[in-house]
Amino acid sequence: MPELRKDPISDRWVIISKDRTPRPGDFVRESVPMTRTDRHCPFCSGQEERTPPELLAHRNGSAANRPGWSLRVIPSNAPVLRVEGELEREGEGLFDRMEGIGAHEIVVETPEHVLSMADLPESAIEQALWAFRERVRDLRNDPRLRYVLIFRNYGESAGAHLEHAHSQLIALPVVPKRVQEELEGASRYYHAKERCIFCDLIRQEMKAGVRVVTETDHFLVVEPYAARFPFETWILPKKHQSHFTDAAAPQLNNLAWVLKTTLKKLERALERPPYNLLVHTSPLQEASNPHYHWHIEIIPKLTRVAGFEWGTGFYINPTPPEDSARFLREAGLG
Amino acid sequence: MPELRKDPISDRWVIISKDRTPRPGDFVRESVPMTRTDRHCPFCSGQEERTPPELLAHRNGSAANRPGWSLRVIPSNAPVLRVEGELEREGEGLFDRMEGIGAHEIVVETPEHVLSMADLPESAIEQALWAFRERVRDLRNDPRLRYVLIFRNYGESAGAHLEHAHSQLIALPVVPKRVQEELEGASRYYHAKERCIFCDLIRQEMKAGVRVVTETDHFLVVEPYAARFPFETWILPKKHQSHFTDAAAPQLNNLAWVLKTTLKKLERALERPPYNLLVHTSPLQEASNPHYHWHIEIIPKLTRVAGFEWGTGFYINPTPPEDSARFLREAGLG
Repeated sequence: MPELRKDPISDRWVIISKDRTPRPGDFVRESVPMTRTDRHCPFCSGQEERTPPELLAHRNGSAANRPGWSLRVIPSNAPVLRVEGELEREGEGLFDRMEGIGAHEIVVETPEHVLSMADLPESAIEQALWAFRERVRDLRNDPRLRYVLIFRNYGESAGAHLEHAHSQLIALPVVPKRVQEELEGASRYYHAKERCIFCDLIRQEMKAGVRVVTETDHFLVVEPYAARFPFETWILPKKHQSHFTDAAAPQLNNLAWVLKTTLKKLERALERPPYNLLVHTSPLQEASNPHYHWHIEIIPKLTRVAGFEWGTGFYINPTPPEDSARFLREAGLG
Repeated sequence: MPELRKDPISDRWVIISKDRTPRPGDFVRESVPMTRTDRHCPFCSGQEERTPPELLAHRNGSAANRPGWSLRVIPSNAPVLRVEGELEREGEGLFDRMEGIGAHEIVVETPEHVLSMADLPESAIEQALWAFRERVRDLRNDPRLRYVLIFRNYGESAGAHLEHAHSQLIALPVVPKRVQEELEGASRYYHAKERCIFCDLIRQEMKAGVRVVTETDHFLVVEPYAARFPFETWILPKKHQSHFTDAAAPQLNNLAWVLKTTLKKLERALERPPYNLLVHTSPLQEASNPHYHWHIEIIPKLTRVAGFEWGTGFYINPTPPEDSARFLREAGLG
């Protein structure tokens, strides 16, 4: 019998069709290649002149925009929004528009042509997390920018154009509606109960155990109760924190291990699936708040989004999260 | 310079990146095949015993579940929700769930192995529209059901599993959140202005002309101002009507021509792209209302939805709707 479940934060219903849980191997559509050489990759060491000048780099004394780095942040050369210009706003009858002001940056996480974040050493992942934090703190100084999304597209069918390991930051002049919904859901709960809904969820999931993938001192990895997609995976800091940029050194150090382990588990269970990784956090210009709780969502691309999902925002998930959590626990590694 | 635009009904922002509008030919990822024979197709005439017993059929005197029909409606043999059972609701700590009660039906629109709705005669399309209306009116009698989505997945990358021309109906025991948002947006506008926002939009678009694809006595076909996707196309009845099931005979007759022409235009401009087609309408158990206006949305599958869209609900559209409207007008046919 299928089951309808509601996500308590966003109020989004999903259909969990439990008739026949597919085995992880049933899904695989596209396995992301493990390694591949590409002499034309603009993100590789030695190709620095092919990208816009770097905004940030971790170097041991070498000159900017030359080899000798372990991480580089560069502006996108096909930015979806631009920093330059005035944030002009305008009405047009019924319609509202504004200039596309914002920022679009690329974090190149390794000078070598490594494809998967899971194949990077923990130190490189930790270095990327520090770079995210530093770039967001810098973008926050521009009062026109209201939200920054940090994300990663891994594999062609997840939207990656270049395969060299990288993440992206897009800063927007408005808080996106989906983010606003999550914030409002969390805020409503806080005002009713005086507790953060994510903190409650962490306690409940730790007690229930069935949807837990891994737990460390600082993080809980769970398959969410109303998962939209098979093997949708959330990484939640155990301590209440509204902004990713509030994460402290021991957390970022631990998160590097958690990310590597979780991605390795997904790669083992699902044969290197394409995925999107998203950092959900509070809006840029807001002070710390007691109701929202930053976290990471990983969405493997295993199923197709079709008419029903587009028409309703209702998702059909053939894999109960209790089953995917078990598959991931059994994948070993941590 | 990119531009941010807001959809006035849902309040959803999109980025229209106007730097370089792709030509329609730049997109094509998958062309849906024009014809193909398939002796194993369960929707073809003569294969009736391979589907569940029909719920509705247009036949000239032949026996049920035998050849001799021009249209058949059958229950899905892999239903995402089921009619049988009790709508049990339950809490589980923070979480809410209910049994997956609902309906999932398939409208097989032709006994021949035709793939595209655009290749069906207008009479067959009109017949399908009548079947939608009849099935929704029947499902409405079940008070557990709150919303019916009528939709079509065309082409494999739009989620179609079988290529024989068909549409689907999924009836749900809740009004989906995305539908609720559209209803609330329209209702807010109505309460502020005492006018339907869609009626205002139709008047404004007819006056502006730049986003209009076609106009008939009963319908306006436009590319929406804040289109999420290249060549997203809406078909709006000119007369205010809250429910698709209120459409009268002359409208359905005209809509068959409008659908065929619009789909042919998209096929010509974009070389038979995969698409999703969705009927947006008021909830099942609600009486006619003055604020919501049923319409059809067609979403060609030309771009990939990646991390940024999943993380924010913000869409990036490389084709301004003014350009896609021009391409479709120039495709001729009506």
